[in-house]
Amino acid sequence: MNTIGRIFSFTDFGESHGVAVGGVVDGCPAGLKLDMEQIRSELQRRAGKDLPYGVSMRAKTEEDQVCWLSGIKDDITLGSPIAFFIKNQSAHAEDYEKIKNIFRPAHADFTYQAKYGIRDWRGGGRASARETAARVVAGSIAKQLLAKYNISVNAKVIQIGDEIDRNRFADILKDLQEKGDSIGGIVECVIHGMKIGIGEPIFDKLPARLSYSIMSINACKGFEYGSGFSLVNKRGSEINNMSGGALGGISDGTDFTFRCVFKPTPSISIAQRTIDENGKSVDISIRGRHDVCLALRAPVIVESMAAITIADLLLENISRSCYAK
Amino acid sequence: MNTIGRIFSFTDFGESHGVAVGGVVDGCPAGLKLDMEQIRSELQRRAGKDLPYGVSMRAKTEEDQVCWLSGIKDDITLGSPIAFFIKNQSAHAEDYEKIKNIFRPAHADFTYQAKYGIRDWRGGGRASARETAARVVAGSIAKQLLAKYNISVNAKVIQIGDEIDRNRFADILKDLQEKGDSIGGIVECVIHGMKIGIGEPIFDKLPARLSYSIMSINACKGFEYGSGFSLVNKRGSEINNMSGGALGGISDGTDFTFRCVFKPTPSISIAQRTIDENGKSVDISIRGRHDVCLALRAPVIVESMAAITIADLLLENISRSCYAK
Amino acid sequence: MNTIGRIFSFTDFGESHGVAVGGVVDGCPAGLKLDMEQIRSELQRRAGKDLPYGVSMRAKTEEDQVCWLSGIKDDITLGSPIAFFIKNQSAHAEDYEKIKNIFRPAHADFTYQAKYGIRDWRGGGRASARETAARVVAGSIAKQLLAKYNISVNAKVIQIGDEIDRNRFADILKDLQEKGDSIGGIVECVIHGMKIGIGEPIFDKLPARLSYSIMSINACKGFEYGSGFSLVNKRGSEINNMSGGALGGISDGTDFTFRCVFKPTPSISIAQRTIDENGKSVDISIRGRHDVCLALRAPVIVESMAAITIADLLLENISRSCYAK
Amino acid sequence: MNTIGRIFSFTDFGESHGVAVGGVVDGCPAGLKLDMEQIRSELQRRAGKDLPYGVSMRAKTEEDQVCWLSGIKDDITLGSPIAFFIKNQSAHAEDYEKIKNIFRPAHADFTYQAKYGIRDWRGGGRASARETAARVVAGSIAKQLLAKYNISVNAKVIQIGDEIDRNRFADILKDLQEKGDSIGGIVECVIHGMKIGIGEPIFDKLPARLSYSIMSINACKGFEYGSGFSLVNKRGSEINNMSGGALGGISDGTDFTFRCVFKPTPSISIAQRTIDENGKSVDISIRGRHDVCLALRAPVIVESMAAITIADLLLENISRSCYAK
Repeated sequence: MNTIGRIFSFTDFGESHGVAVGGVVDGCPAGLKLDMEQIRSELQRRAGKDLPYGVSMRAKTEEDQVCWLSGIKDDITLGSPIAFFIKNQSAHAEDYEKIKNIFRPAHADFTYQAKYGIRDWRGGGRASARETAARVVAGSIAKQLLAKYNISVNAKVIQIGDEIDRNRFADILKDLQEKGDSIGGIVECVIHGMKIGIGEPIFDKLPARLSYSIMSINACKGFEYGSGFSLVNKRGSEINNMSGGALGGISDGTDFTFRCVFKPTPSISIAQRTIDENGKSVDISIRGRHDVCLALRAPVIVESMAAITIADLLLENISRSCYAK
Repeated sequence: MNTIGRIFSFTDFGESHGVAVGGVVDGCPAGLKLDMEQIRSELQRRAGKDLPYGVSMRAKTEEDQVCWLSGIKDDITLGSPIAFFIKNQSAHAEDYEKIKNIFRPAHADFTYQAKYGIRDWRGGGRASARETAARVVAGSIAKQLLAKYNISVNAKVIQIGDEIDRNRFADILKDLQEKGDSIGGIVECVIHGMKIGIGEPIFDKLPARLSYSIMSINACKGFEYGSGFSLVNKRGSEINNMSGGALGGISDGTDFTFRCVFKPTPSISIAQRTIDENGKSVDISIRGRHDVCLALRAPVIVESMAAITIADLLLENISRSCYAK
Repeated sequence: MNTIGRIFSFTDFGESHGVAVGGVVDGCPAGLKLDMEQIRSELQRRAGKDLPYGVSMRAKTEEDQVCWLSGIKDDITLGSPIAFFIKNQSAHAEDYEKIKNIFRPAHADFTYQAKYGIRDWRGGGRASARETAARVVAGSIAKQLLAKYNISVNAKVIQIGDEIDRNRFADILKDLQEKGDSIGGIVECVIHGMKIGIGEPIFDKLPARLSYSIMSINACKGFEYGSGFSLVNKRGSEINNMSGGALGGISDGTDFTFRCVFKPTPSISIAQRTIDENGKSVDISIRGRHDVCLALRAPVIVESMAAITIADLLLENISRSCYAK
Repeated sequence: MNTIGRIFSFTDFGESHGVAVGGVVDGCPAGLKLDMEQIRSELQRRAGKDLPYGVSMRAKTEEDQVCWLSGIKDDITLGSPIAFFIKNQSAHAEDYEKIKNIFRPAHADFTYQAKYGIRDWRGGGRASARETAARVVAGSIAKQLLAKYNISVNAKVIQIGDEIDRNRFADILKDLQEKGDSIGGIVECVIHGMKIGIGEPIFDKLPARLSYSIMSINACKGFEYGSGFSLVNKRGSEINNMSGGALGGISDGTDFTFRCVFKPTPSISIAQRTIDENGKSVDISIRGRHDVCLALRAPVIVESMAAITIADLLLENISRSCYAK
């Protein structure tokens, strides 16, 4: 299913080089006045406009305009589905023409072809990170709903390679770019103002639902919350009063903190060995507008998926616990 | 919702000190001959029967018998819902009588009370790990279905504290037990025989759905697959051909490997500071049948949740890609 | 799926001659004190205890006891799944031994065999009306929740054959019973105290969701609300101010009235022509404890399915419209 | 939820006088070549182009163009979500300006205002039949998928008022139109080529799921299949071998026939009494492009909803019964 969420739900569509990417937000309560400027600026963050040139070569090109189709009138939500799309403007399909029969290393070319027997080979089609633009629009709507409940979501890159000093990220990135290589990174996200009681027991635990939505982001390979993997060598007596924001999967009202890791950009100009559709071994060197580190543009996407998830669980909690209150 | 899965689904119920824990497996294809002995032995693993005494003090006591209510005839699945329950035998409610008004540290007592305005304070009620017995039964059914497709799921503890040598786990555990303390641990799981094409694009990516089901296990604080968090300092040129089992969220036919971390057992005999229902600060020392390391009994639960998830995505893939094939 | 409902959901399980029938009610708010006597009396209604002997030959035999497994403590809901089962007591499997290879006319024997390649031939197995006992228990819980909102659900038989005078039903039924035949009937249900705003636009319209749940009852062949099929020859100027309880699929606060029709009992002692598993044509005369008119015991089942549906939409409306209020 | 279907799902969006109406079809298998001309002609049927002028005054005006956003390449489905929209061209908002504060009789104006605290009063907004254009596009895709399985869906108007002779429909309609009144109608639909085994036991019975989708169509007030309500005075011995297409909710391979009734068009020029937003009683006479009989344009919508439902249950059956086969 290309839909996430039970009450506040988001359906995502679009191929990177098709007509457009977009989505439908369903279940957003009526009467919410949307700040379109905020949505625009979130899309700018995703486009990497705030990143130094060289770090994101896309920065110069991409310009995303949201076309609204339904669900709002005078920028106020009607309680009906909010449908929108973003036209794909810079469709350099020809860049991909020559490699259309080659399965790029660490890309979904091979699995899509195997699963569907057909694929849009232009820029990865459905598997492209281009699709995350729709997540950011839906996420911005979710953030504005959460703001009414004084809940905020903030993510940032905390590590690239071995480096944790943000002032030195640019040097590392420039160096790798010259080498035509890429690097991994870790994003940390903090949810402030959490209400007590968000998250359902057993399968819909707050951390479980969050890990599901975060791990659905392209290139994300791991999720942890609170002290995460470092707990392996901690003792109960040391950490029992550090909940990380949830107990039994339900928010306890304290800030919820999680981290996720992104693999290095698979598209690199250094020559790599791979196979084509006939299984023949070939070398490929991928040039073009590719980030050195995917994690750099991930924070706004991470915030978006977290916000969509919290909005859904917040509304679900209202209905599930209403009679008891 | 206490249900997980879309085609092969599992509904979980039960409080630790209520009448029973159990579940309903829906969507299991008809005609599958169940090996009841395998289910019994999986429950034994969860009960810690194979662990040295002292490591799991429950080992002596717990004995789980599955009562089948529907969905099978002569041990063969009928295609209808398979309902079952396991009686709660050793219900020492009195152990909890004296602390019924106290919120135990790192337990869900506080959040359940806040969310529902009522809770079964006996042994944590719904939030108790007791509930995982039902997951193991459902998981064993899923494993037997997957076996027909030559898919197997195997998990084991790979680290406790700083220790990765399994031969020395017992010493560490005995030492902590004497101190009345607890420790964290990491479980690794490998899925062999994966078919190509399992997992759906975008939100229902194989790793996303797996992290959701694994993070829903009590005390689990992190999930990673393939090279996971270690990718932060890897370069694209180093790791591009290590998929970890999925590309674009869809299985590529290679083994899928993931790891998850469990926090130290919150119930320890060392005195801890906490609050009671009136917010009054109190000291509490929790004695009784508590493991030193929750991770020790986790592998069979991890396997179960992974098997339930793979079974669901396997059947979903059959329906979603049928026409193309 | 054997589950109905999104927030207040009900999972149904059991074969008529297996160990038990039962279900799991999930999403019922915590803190609801259940009246167990009401549940018992609803089950009595389903068993036909209030019907004159001869009309329902089952009356003497069936005695349903509910075994509660989870979700309640001291009869108060905990907010966790409420699981229960009812043992199948009078399992006269031998009655069916001799016709195990025959597809009874108008029964699901043939379709189950074709769909699953296996079936529990004892009393229809999963397809038996026996399963409705679980619906009645879940429905009674839903009714008690609705009562807190001053919503009540009442159904009764309004027609049998051509007869609409309830005083003369008994004669018709006795006559048919002597002939070894059966007859159809119509049940009418009125929902009092509806809140304004229940039901969602487009697919989850109140009448759509109600028809779905009512048409899921065995032998139900039609559903209509308000003036229903009689509207075919009405003019807008005549009926525009008769909403039937919903406008645009959303309750307008007036009573909601619907009717449904049940086909004649398929099991009759008059000899009928059918086929066996080998496609061979055979005659069959079905004797045993079968009602002359299925509609007679249907009202409590109709009320139950309506209550489950209203409870779900009521809770959904709370979460969907919360911010606007 | 504005989404219907579990495997083959359809999400519907749009207000009648907003930017557009449209939808997202998810779960359609990859590799299906779409006949765009067929989709166009289905939309023409909905627009009433084939109806005599006077019967449908919209005929002259409405012209629907489908804009495709994703999920297809060279008219072939990719297995990803198929998103599309249809611009709202003739938005005579001013027609509604003067009655924006009045709740039109038998319309959803009142319930939407009450539920959401806000509504798009232009042409009924979300509650307008305009939304059904998106259903027809999704339905046409479903029909083309079903055609690959040799399943077809055909509906037609069989009664208007007391008239069942189609040759005399026009006279009745012209007469009513002159009077400024409207009339109800009945549509019958036959599904040919049904495979055996479609439909799930208990809640997802074929007739239950069909009634749900058909009753979700605006102005539909009743659904029946097979002999429907006429069964009230039939005897088991008479009708036992007339299944109507399903036994135990599962298709038996014979044609499935159902009927549904549509109320008279609520918008009539005859003056009617109603209330405004302040509860003040007012008279209203609704002029403009309104059909005399809603049922006339309903067949293609009925076919669409039936096709979407059958496609979903067909794919579900493939996954649920796969292992048994």
